[in-house]
Amino acid sequence: MTELLKDLQWRYAAKKMDATKPVSQEKVDYILESIRLSASSSGLQPYEVFVVTNPEVRKQIVPHAWNQAQITDGSHLLVFAAWDNYTAERINTMFDLVNEKRGGTNEGWENYRQMLLNTYPQRDAQTNFEHAARQAYIGLGTALIAAAEQKVDSTPMEGFVPDEVDAILGLKERGLKSVILLPLGYREAEGDWLVNLEKVRRSTEDFITTVE
Amino acid sequence: MTELLKDLQWRYAAKKMDATKPVSQEKVDYILESIRLSASSSGLQPYEVFVVTNPEVRKQIVPHAWNQAQITDGSHLLVFAAWDNYTAERINTMFDLVNEKRGGTNEGWENYRQMLLNTYPQRDAQTNFEHAARQAYIGLGTALIAAAEQKVDSTPMEGFVPDEVDAILGLKERGLKSVILLPLGYREAEGDWLVNLEKVRRSTEDFITTVE
Repeated sequence: MTELLKDLQWRYAAKKMDATKPVSQEKVDYILESIRLSASSSGLQPYEVFVVTNPEVRKQIVPHAWNQAQITDGSHLLVFAAWDNYTAERINTMFDLVNEKRGGTNEGWENYRQMLLNTYPQRDAQTNFEHAARQAYIGLGTALIAAAEQKVDSTPMEGFVPDEVDAILGLKERGLKSVILLPLGYREAEGDWLVNLEKVRRSTEDFITTVE
Repeated sequence: MTELLKDLQWRYAAKKMDATKPVSQEKVDYILESIRLSASSSGLQPYEVFVVTNPEVRKQIVPHAWNQAQITDGSHLLVFAAWDNYTAERINTMFDLVNEKRGGTNEGWENYRQMLLNTYPQRDAQTNFEHAARQAYIGLGTALIAAAEQKVDSTPMEGFVPDEVDAILGLKERGLKSVILLPLGYREAEGDWLVNLEKVRRSTEDFITTVE
């Protein structure tokens, strides 16, 4: 088995984290960099990541997230926040950045920009938000692997009230909506009912279909 | 730089694939296994993956996917297909499988099952589908890394008509909706306008916010 499959086997959604063991900033930066390098539709990266270490802020979030203690027992809380909509400004910012970095542009690329400008901003905000949220989940997939590679535990959480987290972090004013919480820390095995249970996945036969 | 960051730097959405170089079944199986092991909300794995090698079937899909030639130039086309809805049957199947594999159950787990049964099937199908699609994107994030690790090129595609692909693969009857296409193959550098261009991402400052 390669390291990747081993890491995927090793990881699980830690139910209890050790509040005395912080994750080093180096490891957190590594996980963040892996998210930043992740793919996204048209390269727009339509989300941001918030890294909350402030204990008071994390304490405020807990009651809006089913009182899940990993939020405060872990040392870092990542909040993935998706764009609430696609706007011409947001699209142009990314296309301009690409032109700046690549030192020029070309007709195909500019036609592609126009196609997005003629399509995305006209769609309803909910459709655009859902599309942006999916891209954040690509980054989440990467983050789970990056954390496991560093033997850092992480617990993806959808069980929270987005409006409340958005209010605590001031996301609405920035045109963002929280889509997932990801506390980082180290498992406290004694207090964790899940740690010793078998990882269960559907069989290959029930998950994969070949069309030959 | 670790292997993961190198792999993320190496990969890109190949625009031209070499139709004479098929990906080995071993590598494809490895990528599929990494997807199968990926995390999902409540462990429900609310999607399936179709592996299309049949040339005729892939040819049928091309016109419904902006004529993107990687679909036929690559050797394997992965289609991520999300559950169109959460039903009591689907939820129970996963919870039963977990109990079977772990050799028993407990009150907390059964309460959690009831909570999902009392929540998900009552929501509208579109909300549930969007939730399932996000989980498929976690698997996509993993697949992109697994492919890169194997030095296999992959091109995630959202530019296709889901209803047409669903009809070609018979997904509707199975309660599935295609959400992403991922051809696998090897880049043909000469014909690929993107291969030598710099990968562009927003700066860390514009992507990450720290709340200390």
